[in-house]
This record gives sequence, structure tokens and C-alpha cells, in this order.
Amino acid sequence: MGCVQSFRELCDRPKNTNVRISLPAVCIVWQTAMIILFGIFIRYNEESDAHWREDRQKNNLSDIENDFYFRYPSFQDVHVMIFVGFGFLMTFLKRYSFGAVGFNFLIAAFGLQWALLMQGWFGSFTDGKIKIGIENLINADFCVAGCLIAYGAVLGKVSAVQLMVMTLFGITLFAVEEHIILHIIHAKDAGGSMVIHTFGAYYGLSISWMLYRPNLNQSSRMQCSVYHSDVFAMIGTLFLWMFWPSFNSAITDHGDGQHRAAINTYLALASTVLTTVAMSSLFQKHGKLDMVHIQNSTLAGGVAVGTAAEFMLMPYGALIVGFCCGIISTLGYIYITPFMEKYLKIQDTCGIHNLHAMPGVIGGIVGAITAAAASESVYGAYGLKETFDFKGDMVPTRQGGYQAAGLCVALCFGVGGGILVGCILRLPFWGDPADDNCFDDEPYWELPQDEESTQPVIQYNNHMRNKDIIETSFNMQQS
Amino acid sequence: MGCVQSFRELCDRPKNTNVRISLPAVCIVWQTAMIILFGIFIRYNEESDAHWREDRQKNNLSDIENDFYFRYPSFQDVHVMIFVGFGFLMTFLKRYSFGAVGFNFLIAAFGLQWALLMQGWFGSFTDGKIKIGIENLINADFCVAGCLIAYGAVLGKVSAVQLMVMTLFGITLFAVEEHIILHIIHAKDAGGSMVIHTFGAYYGLSISWMLYRPNLNQSSRMQCSVYHSDVFAMIGTLFLWMFWPSFNSAITDHGDGQHRAAINTYLALASTVLTTVAMSSLFQKHGKLDMVHIQNSTLAGGVAVGTAAEFMLMPYGALIVGFCCGIISTLGYIYITPFMEKYLKIQDTCGIHNLHAMPGVIGGIVGAITAAAASESVYGAYGLKETFDFKGDMVPTRQGGYQAAGLCVALCFGVGGGILVGCILRLPFWGDPADDNCFDDEPYWELPQDEESTQPVIQYNNHMRNKDIIETSFNMQQS
Amino acid sequence: MGCVQSFRELCDRPKNTNVRISLPAVCIVWQTAMIILFGIFIRYNEESDAHWREDRQKNNLSDIENDFYFRYPSFQDVHVMIFVGFGFLMTFLKRYSFGAVGFNFLIAAFGLQWALLMQGWFGSFTDGKIKIGIENLINADFCVAGCLIAYGAVLGKVSAVQLMVMTLFGITLFAVEEHIILHIIHAKDAGGSMVIHTFGAYYGLSISWMLYRPNLNQSSRMQCSVYHSDVFAMIGTLFLWMFWPSFNSAITDHGDGQHRAAINTYLALASTVLTTVAMSSLFQKHGKLDMVHIQNSTLAGGVAVGTAAEFMLMPYGALIVGFCCGIISTLGYIYITPFMEKYLKIQDTCGIHNLHAMPGVIGGIVGAITAAAASESVYGAYGLKETFDFKGDMVPTRQGGYQAAGLCVALCFGVGGGILVGCILRLPFWGDPADDNCFDDEPYWELPQDEESTQPVIQYNNHMRNKDIIETSFNMQQS
Repeated sequence: MGCVQSFRELCDRPKNTNVRISLPAVCIVWQTAMIILFGIFIRYNEESDAHWREDRQKNNLSDIENDFYFRYPSFQDVHVMIFVGFGFLMTFLKRYSFGAVGFNFLIAAFGLQWALLMQGWFGSFTDGKIKIGIENLINADFCVAGCLIAYGAVLGKVSAVQLMVMTLFGITLFAVEEHIILHIIHAKDAGGSMVIHTFGAYYGLSISWMLYRPNLNQSSRMQCSVYHSDVFAMIGTLFLWMFWPSFNSAITDHGDGQHRAAINTYLALASTVLTTVAMSSLFQKHGKLDMVHIQNSTLAGGVAVGTAAEFMLMPYGALIVGFCCGIISTLGYIYITPFMEKYLKIQDTCGIHNLHAMPGVIGGIVGAITAAAASESVYGAYGLKETFDFKGDMVPTRQGGYQAAGLCVALCFGVGGGILVGCILRLPFWGDPADDNCFDDEPYWELPQDEESTQPVIQYNNHMRNKDIIETSFNMQQS
Repeated sequence: MGCVQSFRELCDRPKNTNVRISLPAVCIVWQTAMIILFGIFIRYNEESDAHWREDRQKNNLSDIENDFYFRYPSFQDVHVMIFVGFGFLMTFLKRYSFGAVGFNFLIAAFGLQWALLMQGWFGSFTDGKIKIGIENLINADFCVAGCLIAYGAVLGKVSAVQLMVMTLFGITLFAVEEHIILHIIHAKDAGGSMVIHTFGAYYGLSISWMLYRPNLNQSSRMQCSVYHSDVFAMIGTLFLWMFWPSFNSAITDHGDGQHRAAINTYLALASTVLTTVAMSSLFQKHGKLDMVHIQNSTLAGGVAVGTAAEFMLMPYGALIVGFCCGIISTLGYIYITPFMEKYLKIQDTCGIHNLHAMPGVIGGIVGAITAAAASESVYGAYGLKETFDFKGDMVPTRQGGYQAAGLCVALCFGVGGGILVGCILRLPFWGDPADDNCFDDEPYWELPQDEESTQPVIQYNNHMRNKDIIETSFNMQQS
Repeated sequence: MGCVQSFRELCDRPKNTNVRISLPAVCIVWQTAMIILFGIFIRYNEESDAHWREDRQKNNLSDIENDFYFRYPSFQDVHVMIFVGFGFLMTFLKRYSFGAVGFNFLIAAFGLQWALLMQGWFGSFTDGKIKIGIENLINADFCVAGCLIAYGAVLGKVSAVQLMVMTLFGITLFAVEEHIILHIIHAKDAGGSMVIHTFGAYYGLSISWMLYRPNLNQSSRMQCSVYHSDVFAMIGTLFLWMFWPSFNSAITDHGDGQHRAAINTYLALASTVLTTVAMSSLFQKHGKLDMVHIQNSTLAGGVAVGTAAEFMLMPYGALIVGFCCGIISTLGYIYITPFMEKYLKIQDTCGIHNLHAMPGVIGGIVGAITAAAASESVYGAYGLKETFDFKGDMVPTRQGGYQAAGLCVALCFGVGGGILVGCILRLPFWGDPADDNCFDDEPYWELPQDEESTQPVIQYNNHMRNKDIIETSFNMQQS
């Protein structure tokens, strides 16, 4: 810890937020690298290749049985969650909406390319090529989601270059962790409670801990919302909330698997809304609702039902999961976030600990229990085998253990990876803002004139005309 | 009427908007009840159950023939309409956007759970269980839509607790009414012109009549929009408008039924936009357009084509329906809403009478006429039977009569149910705002700081005008 | 040119923005004409007609093989792009959001009806009837997109009546041009780089050139954004960006065609974001990003990959296209738009030259090259034939030539049509705003009260603090 401390001091230099060289360099170089790597490695898979027409006829398939038609509607919904959902959810700060939605856009667009490569190398690398189709696009979006969650913890305190670095490493770690959990341990995690949410949240929280700013209160005037920024954030909340059933069902098994995952998620989310409202009202003076809770905690049920959504969780099971998560997440915003900031030195701008970390862990546990409790009477002999991809003499109880092991892996990768990447991000040349300049778009964006110091004057001169008022007062007083 | 009047006086007590006990209590208790009832009654249906894999193989079906793939894209569109469409449509008030989008979120999340139970008991209750699949989720969203329409009439004048009560009864009445219309009378109503819009609108209007506030003009400073709140409302309008073809086709017959319903709705809505713009411009000074009309009346065609969308209405028929509704709805905003407020004592915040009530009734009538005019030459012998689910010696003209009967049932349930529930909502302990405190988020939401301390100053200067400032300066200088 | 000049002078009369007669007249008369023409010409096609049930059984098809299920999810995404995407993208001006989203709504709703007729007469007119299904709806939306692109060039400078006229002619020209390119020349253009973007952009730019306003700087105070209007515009940007894969794949061949088009577009767009950010940062003082670039240039990759999206462009090919377009489009905003305004007298409000014209032309060229380079080894013998609809002894190199010819046709129709329609729009009775009244909703919309006279007062007191004003007046009077 002393070492970490001295490293911290080493890094505390005067801040220069000019990224005119570093940001273009990172974007151009990395994008060029992507083109080269895609040229070497990435090709269309069987179902998106022009040869499919012949294969289809040979196999006597209908066009509609192309995987595209099973997955595309869900893919587009997930895509909306990534770009509009995550982007707008973070617009709540009064003067950081450009950064929220713009940097989210940037790192997601980079991340999905890198994810296609990383996930491809680990998952579908055959004959020297990665063959991609619609399912790979969904998985790339999922992978990006992990990094966007992490962005929530450091929102307003880092530069775009830091976010790019964070995304590069985040995607890399994600792909490794995912491969271990899904393909080595053989845990199931369709909606990514462990793989996406637990990993992403602890990755972000660890980075935030490494980037701790003792004097962040110098920016506290900016760390709040205004009326319309809260309404913008509700756009993000609602698109996440509405499309979460697509998120959790996007890569589950065709047929009943996707069907069941959508139903479970729909129900868990509905339940969460009610308990979130209840807690928010109960713990505020005069019973007034807090927009922070409504914007965030209402989503916790979707996170927590991610792993078990494709299992026979039963509708009431989904409701119970949502019920608990709404309560826990809201209490987290009220009690745990301030505690973490004060005592653990973790400054979590969006409260991702309450929205992703805790519900993600709960989701992992629910998944383990549900898997361990699976039985042929509930699933049918064939259904049991297929739902869990059981091979050989695998039994549900052992699957439950594997699920728990998967959760631990996600936690370790999140915390460990975050500390490592946090170290890198503390280096003094990334262009991050000074402590009194956080949560502000000003250092990184050309702002519309009216929004800086000039607007009042402009407006004033425009419409009221200084002179007139003064003259009027002068005249009045003369008479 | 004397009795109603005295009951009204009985209820006029000083207002206390603190819902710190009642709102959490309602949310927690009702959500707990949902979990218990779901535990007892609700299970996955055949196509979302893990046993489906075996059934599928036995029946030689492809995975893609799971109902999920027929309905899921439409379901997600409907979901967006419910939460973003209805929610944002009501954000037009300058200081009630949190309540519009937040309470809409709350009551929809509760309503869909209760709807699954209520509609299940009436519709698909077998062997003591309700089996749910994607179609049930759509129907639950539809059921919720009825209550959200009703919310439009009382927007800004009720508390969240009242909305929850209104939803509980609204869903209950809806399920009964829907069962009578669709399964006893055997009327067809795929897009819910009668079942959803007519019922929902008259339910809301009757409640609003029961909750009449003679001194509501004390809040008139809040009952208007600002520039950006009108833009937010356009988000709601457009998502409703764009996805309405999904709404009307979501539960129609597979294949040509869904296809035709989407086409008819698309055309009716396009036609409505033009006549709405025409009327709005024609009846304003200087031909300026009014955002209220653009936000609302452009949707009337979708409402009015709901019942007949799945019939062979013909493309020009859809255009005619839209044409008429755009005119009627816009004239409603200009003439009927003020008339209703002044003479009928119905204060209809969002003008649901123009957007849902009148077009809903028109839709019911159009449906009756189209059904009565159906013939084998137009539908084909098999198509006619299947489109209308004719059993035995049923003939189109009789079906037309049944449709008309269905409309009457919807009207009766709406008006009757609304008066009943309005009585309950007049009780003095629901936490509704005082007459001078309506259309304001302040009583129920923690507002961002900038809106509290600075805004009063704004208001003050607004209302006090220049002269006061000047006088102040004069006085200061005197002393 | 002298003739054009004198025509210009002829048209410069004092402006009257009252459209109380002309706008309603145009809307009502044209909508009535639509109803009559639809009554004469438009019927359901085979798959949306009630007879389909019998045909289906005869042909042993599954319900899910109705074209509706192949196209409907993409259709709804395209629909969102047209109404929310284009509409909100143009809301960036500080006081023209009503006009942006409202007039976009109006002309799209009219345009799609007229497009169904025009495209029907040219494309699917048999036995005196036009038979429509889901693919026609998509094509109508595409056709409308061309006119909405053109709207971007004249945003804020024309009246709703002018826009209606522009749409009437635009759709007509589009349908002819499309027929020539796709059905006479037999070029392929699934995503419409040539047919939609090149045509639409040059159509708009030519009109803007014809409507050149030398004194437009009188409105320069209004031709800028405010913070929240830029956030609203990001809603448009993101929905366009996210759903562009649906746009480019909506009418491609079933199966691998749609699958591949979606993948290519997804990748091209991702790549564009990075190079746009790089250029925006590199060419600004202090490396700050400019919202104009983020809102617009990030979309250029989707435009440029339109023609080739369904071909075997290869994933790295898509990335390269996106890479180049991000750079070119951003540089266009920085250098070409000011140049065009100063020297070519083309005032392009939204910069459609950078977003649609240049990327559209690039897309046409990429399409020609990709087509010319096609081979049986890459596509398979059957795949090659089917992808390009080769008939007889057609070969890829010749197809490449046809593609290039198609691009020229689009350019000619755009420029020629725009000049023609620009002449018409210069007539003095269309109600367009005066030079000092552009980019303002005030002439055409009833604005909320607070935004006119009162807001300046608010701003003033907020930011300058009363005391200072008073002191200033005091001091002035002392001296």
C-alpha cells in the first residue's frame, strides 16, 4: 500500500487537458491496426457468406432459418442499449452530457471492433480465420457493455484517451475471463450477470479506487443534475429497461430458450420498479422520490436475472429476484455509495456498485442455485441436457458449483484487472482534468457560446440592453 | 347529483402531499401479493417451457416457428410505446416531466403484473394454472395502455398512490370488459380501438370528472410548456406514431393478418398528419402551428384504425379513416376540450378525449361497418372464416352487430368504472396536491438544486418585472 | 446565368410568412388526391391479402415464410431513422427544433404516400393495380429519406409549403431516377448510396443554391446551437447510427444477403467514429471535439457502404470505407462547407454535402469497384448469379460499369432536378421567412410563452446578479 501511495504522489503533476495530439494518434493508429488485423483474420461465417445459398438448398433449409432472423431483432435492441441506453443514462450531470454520450459512442465503436478480434481468437478461431456472423456482433456489443459499465464509475474524471486505454485492456480482460468462465469452467451466463456486470463493475470500481482524487469536492458544484439533464437520463434508463429482455435472450438457445429468457427478464424488471420506488420514498424526507434511484435502481433486476434468465427460474422466481434487487440497489445509493467514497476511497460517479456490482453478484448466486436445483421433472430429460449443454455424466449440482466458480473468476478479473489498468491510467500524460475541473465538458468539447461565460452577457445585451435599464433608472431617479 | 356534491364537500380537506408511508406500503404490499399470486398461478406456456424441444421434434417444427419469432419484434415496439411513448408524450408540462415519465413507469410496471393475472384468470386459466408466453406479455402491455391513457386525463392532479389505485381497478375492469367483448360477444378488436382506447379514455375522463377542481386555475402558471419540454414530448409522439403499426398488428393472426394490419396502420397515420397540420394552421391566428395538435392529433389515425386494421379495410379505407380523425381530433383540442372544462366540469390535462375517446369510438364504428361489409369475394372463403374466427353459421352482418355491441360495452365499463373509482379517489388520505400546487413535480420529487433556490428568484423577477428592480435600485441609492 | 440572376431579383419581394391559407390548402387537397389515387390504384399484395392463407397451404409454406417476418424488424428500424433519426438530427439549432422535427414529420408523412404511388407505377404496376406489401413500405421510407436529406440543406430557410412542394417533386424525380438506375441500367443499390444519398444531397444543394440568400448573416445569431439542443441532436445521430445496418439490409436478398449487409454496415460505421473523432480533435484549437462533427460525420460510413453492403466487401473492406469517410466528411465540415458558402453560394445548413453527397459518391464508386472485382471463387457460382441478379451472359466487370453509370444518373437527376425545383421555390408566394428571420420557429409555430419575452430577464438576473446592475446604475449616476 505504501508503494501505491508513493506511485500516486509521483503521478500528481499539474494537469494539461489538451489531447490534440494524443487523441487523434490513438484513434488513427488503433483504427489502422484494426483494419490490418481484420484483413488478416476476419471473414464472414457460413450464414453470412454468399455460398450459403448453395448450402441452404443442399440442407433443405428455408431462408428464414438463417441465424440472422433468430437474432437480428434482439441484436438491434442490444445495440440501442449500448449507444442510447448507456450513453443517455450518464447524461444526468448538468454539464457533462456531451462527454457522457460522446465518449460512450467513441469507446463503444472502438471496443466492438477489438472485441470481435479478441472474442474471435478465443472463441471461433479455425483455420487461421475468425468467421463472424450476427451472434458475434451481439457478443461484441456485450463485451463493450462491460467497459461502458466501468466508464460509469469514472465518469467526468478521465480523458477520452484514458477511456480508450481502459477499453483496450477492458476488452482484452473480458475476452479472457469470458473464455475461462464459459468455455473452460463451462458455466452458463446468457445475460452476463457475472461475465459482463460483475466483471465490468469491479473493473471500473478498482480503476476509480486507483484514480482516487482527495480534492474532488472542488468540482462538487458540477457534480449535480439540472431538471432537463435528468429527463435526458430517463431516455437512457427506459431504453435499457425496455430492451433488457432482448439483452438477456439475445444469445440464448433458439426457441424456448430465448422465449423464457425474455419473460423472466420482463418480470424481474417490473418487480424492481415497485421496490425501488418504495425504498426511494421511504428513505427521503417527506417521501419524495429521488431521480437517481429511479434512473438506476429500477434496472437492477435485469442485471440480477441475467444468468438464470434462460433457466426454469419460474415467473415468481423472477419477481423475487427483482424485488430484492430493487431494495438492495436503492439502499446502496443511500448508504453504501457515500460510505465507499468516505472510507474506501472509491468515487463512483454513477453508482455502478449499486446498479451492476451487487446485482451482478446476486445474479451469479441466483444462477448457481437455480442450476443446482435443476431436475429432469422440471426441464424434461432432453430439455435439461440441452439447456445446460450437459456433456457426459454432468449433473445439476456440479453445474451449480461451476456457476459459483465462474462468479469468482469474474470478481478476480474485475478487481485485479482494474488495479493493473488503474496504475497505467495514473501516468501523468493522459490529459485528465484537474480536481476543480471535473464533471465539465469544457476541457474536451467546443461548447455552444451561450453556455460558457459569455451567454449571460450576450442575452443581456441582446434583449435587455444594459444601457436602457440604467438610463431608465437614472431618469426615474431624476424626476 | 346532490349526493355526489355532498360527497365532494366531505372530501375537501386541507391537503397533505406526504406519501412517505402510503406509497412504500402500497408498493411493497402489492408487489408481495404479486409474488404470492404468481407463485400459485403463473407458469411458462408450452412454447417457453424447456419441454418444448421435445414437442417440437415430435411435431416436426422448426425452432423459428416458436410463437416468439412471430411476436417478439412487435412486442418490443409495443413495450417502447408504453414506457417511452406514453411517458414522454406527457412530459410537455414545463415542470412535471419527472412525474409524467416516472409515474408512468411505476404504474405500467405494476399494471403489467396485475394484468398477467387478471387476463390469465379470464383468458387462459387451465388446470389451476395460467400459462404465459410472449402473447400474454403483449396483452399485459395493452391492458396497461388503457390505464396510461386514463392517466393523461388526470396528469398533474393526483398522487402516485392514487395512480396505483386507479391502475389496480383499471386493470381489473379492463380484463372483465375485454373478456366480455372478445370472448363472450366475440367481437374482434386487434388494435384495441374499443377495448383499450374507448375504455381507457372514458375511464380517465370519468375519474377526472369525479375529481373536478373548481379552483384549478390557481395552478395555471404551471399548466403550460417550455420550449424543450415540447421537444421532449415529441419523442413520445414519434415513438408512438412509428410503432403503432406494431401495436395494431402485434396479436393479429400470423402471416397476412399481421402484414395487413401493419400496412393499414402505417397509412392511416400518414394521412392523419396532413389533416392535423391543416386544421392546426387554419384555426390559429397567422396560420401558426400548435405543438399540442402536432403532439397528439397526429396519432388519432392509429387509434381509429385499431379494430379494422386486420380486416380488408383497403389502403384507401385506411387513408380515409386517418383523414377524418386528424380533422376531428384537432377540432376537439380547439373547441371541445375548453367546452368540456367549462360546461361539463371535466378537466382533461392531455386532451385524451380528442386523442383516444373520439377516435376510439370512430374505430369501433369503422370496425363494425368493415366487418358487416365483409364478403367471400374479398376475403376468400377460407380467409373470411379465419379472419373473423367464424364458427357455425356466422355471417358478416351479424358480426357487424357484435362489433357495435362491443363498443357499447367498452363505453359502459369506461364511464361506470371511472365514476366508481373516482369516488374512491376522492377520499382525503391519498396525498393529492392542493389546487395551487398541481402540475408541479415539487411535492413528489427531490428536484435538482438549481431548480429550487434559483428558480424562485427567476419567478420573482418574472412576475415583478423591471420596474421593481429599478425601484429597488432607487431606494438603495436614496439611503 | 443572367437569366437566373434576373429571375432572382424578380422574386425578391417583401416576405409574408403567413401560411394560414396555403398550408391547409396544400395538405387537404393533396391528401384528398392521395385518397382518390389510392382508391383507384393501390391494393394489398399477395402476402398481405386475406387469400394468402389458401395460397400458403397450397404451396406448403409456413406462416413464418411470409415476407413480413423477413422485413418487418428492419422496416421498423428504418421508420425510426426517418422520423426520429432525421427529425432529431436537425434539432441542433437553438430555436428551430419544432421546425426540424415537425416539418420533417409532415413531409415524411406526405412523401411516403406519394412514394407508394410513384414507385408503384414504375415498379409493380400490373393489371392496372399497384400491389403493396412490407417491401413497398420500406421503399417508400427510402424514397422519403432522399427528400429529408435535401431538407437538411435548406433547414430554417424555407416554409412548410415550400417543403411540401420540394417533396412532391423530389419523390417524383426519385422514382424516375430509381427506376432508371435499378431496372433499366440494372445497377444494384440496396442501401441507396447513389439512389438515395447522392440524389438527395445534390437535389438539396441545388435547391439551396437557387435559394441563395446574400444577407443570411442577418440571422446568424440564430444559426447556432445551445447545450441541450446539441444533446437532442445526438438522439437523432444515435438512432441513425444504430439502425443503419437495418437500413442497408432492409431490402437485400433474404438470408445471407441481409446478414452480410448488416455486418458490413455495422463495421463501416464503427470505423467512421474513430476517424471522425481524430480529425475533429486534430483540427480544433486545444484538441477540443466539435459536436457538429460527432453528430454528422460519424454517419458517413453508413452512407458510403450502402451500395456495396450486400456484396462480399469483406469486413476489412467495410472498415476501410468507414475510415476514409470519417476523415473526408470531417474535413468537409471544416474546409468545404465554408468554401461552398463563400465561393459557390451554396448555404448548406446541416452540411449534407459532407454527410450525404461526398460519402454517397464514394459509396457509388466502392460499389462499382466491388462489383467489378466479384468472382465465382468468392461468391460461388450460384451466389454470384443471385447476388447480382445476373441474367444471360452478364459478367462482373460489365456490372461495374453499370454501377458507375447509375452513379452518373443519380448525380444528374439531383443537380438538374434541384435547379428546376429551386426555380419554382423562388416564386414569391410560398411564405418563406425574411433574411433576418431564418432559423427561427417564431414565424411558423405558436411558441411557449416563457421563451419569448421573459427568458432574457431570467438569464439576466441569474447570471449577472441584481446587485451588480444596481451598483452599475448607481455609479453611473454618481459620475
